[in-house]
Amino acid sequence: MHHSAILAFDIFGTVVDWHGSIAREVQALYPQVDGDAFALAWRQGYQPAMQRVRSGELGWTRIDDLHRMILDGLLPRFGLAHLSDAERQHLNLVWHRLDPWPDSVHGLTRLKTRHTICSLSNGNLGLLTNMAKRAGLPWDCILSAEVFRAYKPDPRTYLGVADVFRVPPAQVMLVAAHQDDLAAARACGLSTAYVERPLEFGGARPKDVSPDLANTLHARDFMDLADQLGC
Amino acid sequence: MHHSAILAFDIFGTVVDWHGSIAREVQALYPQVDGDAFALAWRQGYQPAMQRVRSGELGWTRIDDLHRMILDGLLPRFGLAHLSDAERQHLNLVWHRLDPWPDSVHGLTRLKTRHTICSLSNGNLGLLTNMAKRAGLPWDCILSAEVFRAYKPDPRTYLGVADVFRVPPAQVMLVAAHQDDLAAARACGLSTAYVERPLEFGGARPKDVSPDLANTLHARDFMDLADQLGC
Repeated sequence: MHHSAILAFDIFGTVVDWHGSIAREVQALYPQVDGDAFALAWRQGYQPAMQRVRSGELGWTRIDDLHRMILDGLLPRFGLAHLSDAERQHLNLVWHRLDPWPDSVHGLTRLKTRHTICSLSNGNLGLLTNMAKRAGLPWDCILSAEVFRAYKPDPRTYLGVADVFRVPPAQVMLVAAHQDDLAAARACGLSTAYVERPLEFGGARPKDVSPDLANTLHARDFMDLADQLGC
Repeated sequence: MHHSAILAFDIFGTVVDWHGSIAREVQALYPQVDGDAFALAWRQGYQPAMQRVRSGELGWTRIDDLHRMILDGLLPRFGLAHLSDAERQHLNLVWHRLDPWPDSVHGLTRLKTRHTICSLSNGNLGLLTNMAKRAGLPWDCILSAEVFRAYKPDPRTYLGVADVFRVPPAQVMLVAAHQDDLAAARACGLSTAYVERPLEFGGARPKDVSPDLANTLHARDFMDLADQLGC
């Protein structure tokens, strides 16, 4: 029996397949580019870009803008330095068009019958809303770093969810495919569920998805999580 | 043709029937109390309570807490000074259990086929989430004064919606049953739609729902609004 009233979901990699979605779209738009390498390079710029905000070098910045800064730096390396501003802007919004994992929509729909389900992502509210609308993600509420003005793993994000719903931290369960995100949530007193996403970095780079016993739950996917939570 | 990509909805009175819901619940719990008068008195405390925050007398306070402060002041007047803390807390959460107007769920479902629909309420995120989950309100995104740390009619709330979705203010349409809310949104450059809710204050007090030509649209209810927007 797990009494987590609130399930808060990491998004990139946990609910949606950023690698596959970006690789496919880049490959379709620019057949000469290695979509797989492009997706990985874009994502690799993510933590360093957020670090510039965390360190104070940059003021509060939405992920849309960080994605664009990384993209602008990336394009020359992939022979795309000639892209116009409109083309860059369109490409940047691929992060709003990420496809869910095959089990995400059905799994979330089951989970929301007994729990309040919300996002807890470093992605901005507009990005998460557009993504949910396109992909059919049935959130009860969209929460984001943008609401708390801090990126994960800042404690303000995890504790912010508990505060929004006025519950003790242990009644919030973070669901994520990343052990570092879960460890930070656990340090704030949240419950945690690890979800295996072995293909997060593409089929050529299977991810280590072995369990960490420190987590409250370990689930193969959202259907398995729904089973374990009796939904 | 109206090109408002984003429809932002006022909640209390516009989407849900606070008067009827509170009157019914109070009457059921405490048959000796005049539910109609109780609902009106509770709501009458709302603007003065927010004013204490706006003026700086109180720090940032969620509506849940303002509702509770007003309630505590109200109970003696209605012979309910003996209510326990648990009973007060339960009663206070009636604001999370407000019933939608009969056209709200179907109307919103139609409107969201062609627009992004979000709340823009002074109610807090937890309240709005619980309300939506219970009533089946199909928001694409829940926005609240809590996100912007300012109550309507502060410009930060109206402009905040445009900022979240990165659109010019005119591409956001505020939908509300209150001309003052709409006037403040208009002053920020938003489009506006007035919705008639003649029973907002109960059947005994029909409301003036005459049009203000300054609004972009005037609708009988959400179905009429959906018709006018071609949804």
